[in-house]
Amino acid sequence: MTPSSERRQPVPGPSFPTMWKELAGIGRDPASGGYRRYAWTGADTECRAWFREQAESRGLAYETDRNGNQWAWLGDPDGTDAVVTGSHLDSVPDGGAFDGPLGVVSSFAAVDELLRRGAAPTRPLAVVNFGDEEGARFGLACVGSRLSAGQLTRDAAYALRDGDGVALPDAMEAAGHDPSAIGPDPGRLARIGAFVELHVEQGRALDLTGDPVGVASAIWPHGRWRYDFRGEANHAGTTRLADRRDPMLPYAETVLAARRAAELAGAVATFGKVAVEPNGVNAIPSLVRGWLDSRAADQATLDTVTAAVEAAAREAADRQGVDLAVVRESFTPVVEFAHALRDELGRILDRGGERPVPVLGTGAGHDAGILSASVPTAMLFVRNPTGVSHSPAESATEDDCVAGVRALADVLEGLACR
Amino acid sequence: MTPSSERRQPVPGPSFPTMWKELAGIGRDPASGGYRRYAWTGADTECRAWFREQAESRGLAYETDRNGNQWAWLGDPDGTDAVVTGSHLDSVPDGGAFDGPLGVVSSFAAVDELLRRGAAPTRPLAVVNFGDEEGARFGLACVGSRLSAGQLTRDAAYALRDGDGVALPDAMEAAGHDPSAIGPDPGRLARIGAFVELHVEQGRALDLTGDPVGVASAIWPHGRWRYDFRGEANHAGTTRLADRRDPMLPYAETVLAARRAAELAGAVATFGKVAVEPNGVNAIPSLVRGWLDSRAADQATLDTVTAAVEAAAREAADRQGVDLAVVRESFTPVVEFAHALRDELGRILDRGGERPVPVLGTGAGHDAGILSASVPTAMLFVRNPTGVSHSPAESATEDDCVAGVRALADVLEGLACR
Repeated sequence: MTPSSERRQPVPGPSFPTMWKELAGIGRDPASGGYRRYAWTGADTECRAWFREQAESRGLAYETDRNGNQWAWLGDPDGTDAVVTGSHLDSVPDGGAFDGPLGVVSSFAAVDELLRRGAAPTRPLAVVNFGDEEGARFGLACVGSRLSAGQLTRDAAYALRDGDGVALPDAMEAAGHDPSAIGPDPGRLARIGAFVELHVEQGRALDLTGDPVGVASAIWPHGRWRYDFRGEANHAGTTRLADRRDPMLPYAETVLAARRAAELAGAVATFGKVAVEPNGVNAIPSLVRGWLDSRAADQATLDTVTAAVEAAAREAADRQGVDLAVVRESFTPVVEFAHALRDELGRILDRGGERPVPVLGTGAGHDAGILSASVPTAMLFVRNPTGVSHSPAESATEDDCVAGVRALADVLEGLACR
Repeated sequence: MTPSSERRQPVPGPSFPTMWKELAGIGRDPASGGYRRYAWTGADTECRAWFREQAESRGLAYETDRNGNQWAWLGDPDGTDAVVTGSHLDSVPDGGAFDGPLGVVSSFAAVDELLRRGAAPTRPLAVVNFGDEEGARFGLACVGSRLSAGQLTRDAAYALRDGDGVALPDAMEAAGHDPSAIGPDPGRLARIGAFVELHVEQGRALDLTGDPVGVASAIWPHGRWRYDFRGEANHAGTTRLADRRDPMLPYAETVLAARRAAELAGAVATFGKVAVEPNGVNAIPSLVRGWLDSRAADQATLDTVTAAVEAAAREAADRQGVDLAVVRESFTPVVEFAHALRDELGRILDRGGERPVPVLGTGAGHDAGILSASVPTAMLFVRNPTGVSHSPAESATEDDCVAGVRALADVLEGLACR
């Protein structure tokens, strides 16, 4: 946890396109074209080595914290009221190139821009890479930031297992990070005066308004509910329809009911994951398990949607003689980003602009959402022309990436060089 | 392929309850309570050793044919116009105790009954255990009977792989059966004058008529169709409903359309197997693949059902901007069992009875259905009080099992001791 590189005069590093190209080859599946950079795997270790190299090549002080998050400091790592920017480098299964890496690459590029401008920071500045943001391997998102913010206990983290039964601390250790000290890091968080995360937009709001960059207002409340429909396994060829207790039927009705409820409420609701037993072509299932993901702009709307889905599911299950259990597996209340910091970003970015920068809510969780409970936090979004996310098709134009870097540099300069 | 046991005077063997108890412990999963007797595995090998022991303990001539089917002969294995009875000992995943074994155990018990009656067969009699009827391991049902009947080529059989990539001939060899000679066995089939398979009913027809035993009229035509709904993977939290191409929605509509079409036509249609990609809780799927199993009493009705399901699926897919491909993965036309043999069974079983034995169709495939193209074939069904099948809950009462053995013994005596 001691900065590893000798202090020297910081200099700009490789350009945005060079950094982008270096990352592009790491952890990409040739068949799907998507990224598989799961926490503490070989691909993740390569990404982390790349981050360290970026820090050291610029003469930034590099360190990893107790939870394996990586930091690159311009100025004193032990100073107070630091301005921190960054995101994550891990990915969902077959994810795109932008979700996470755009924020990290733009952060280094923004620091380079400040150095080129000859800006003189009066506050410490850092670029951060939070570990295991997507939760693709251990099933829990934002593990690095949750641990630091005290939102995930050490015991709970030690109990996390991946699909092969490997425990999180063992995975950390195998990747070269000592897990013995993981846990809350209040001293470090107390030294941060502002955290700004730049992220590719995961929707089409900026495309619809015609703006390259926007500021986040809030993260929608969201949750995951597991629906277990239990019927009776039987032969699909010989069992009369009247004698069936087929859980696939109420599952199907519930999928459609969720869509209708979300449409009526202006929310989103999705069944994207299903597990069926015994899952045989000629077998009526004994169990159909579906997971509902639902989010809305406010708590009351979300409650309305999820109550409507559950009522429809119970009605459909009863009609088929099927048992239903609904379990809320996770829930995150609304996160309102700090109004003062958001307004300050607005003032910095509106300077000389023809119209105010758009302020938009988002349905996705982020490390910024976790940190916002401990630290004044803001987010910048870069336009995504198709809105596609968590897929190899997610994208941002080169011009918009440049606009994002410029906006982030303006924000860092405005906050740190007053 | 030469009979292995010395000829001696055949004697009755262990009782039905003793045989049933011996089989009960083989391949049963303690957690599910279901059987996992997959072809050429350890559990299957134990069942096969049990079959051989039954043959030899009774002084029946035991042999395995080129395709690994097991035979136990009362009379000359090389004689012509043989009367053969039997079924299979393998199971579906977590199957019940009756589907298959009831036919084999009842066959041995019926031979014992003939011996006790002092019946003098004028035709060779055999009990058979067909290999790999359920197709649980290699994905194709009735492999043993298909090979013998020339309905599965040697090359196609050599190309079969299980879920771990093990080839069928390697699995056979590992279990002690030389696969080099597998293929059509027309000489053996030509020596069979009648094949009768006794099977637990896989439905409630006999329960509804109140009869312990029935005779099969036909096996319904049936097929399997794979529905591939392809949409666009995207973030479930951030993608506006209007921007989605979610394949789960038309899949759900198709599940419900299949049920409606089957209800209208008096047929059955089931979606029991689903595969979703990427199958993440917070991901709109890129692909939902569902398998339709549908069966009806006649071809025209089946065509009506499957056309209605496909039309509904296409309409729903179009509405969501989702692509749909429908592939017929397998199809079996109607099998009408030989009318002369069925009528003869009816005459034998009606003798002295108050009312004729019920004649019923079935939606399930059987070795008897495969053989019926080459050999006069019939089936007897034993009442199943709940109709449950392919599940640990399938059952038949002790009284009905006794009635089944008596009926089978009457049939064998009537056919072979004229």
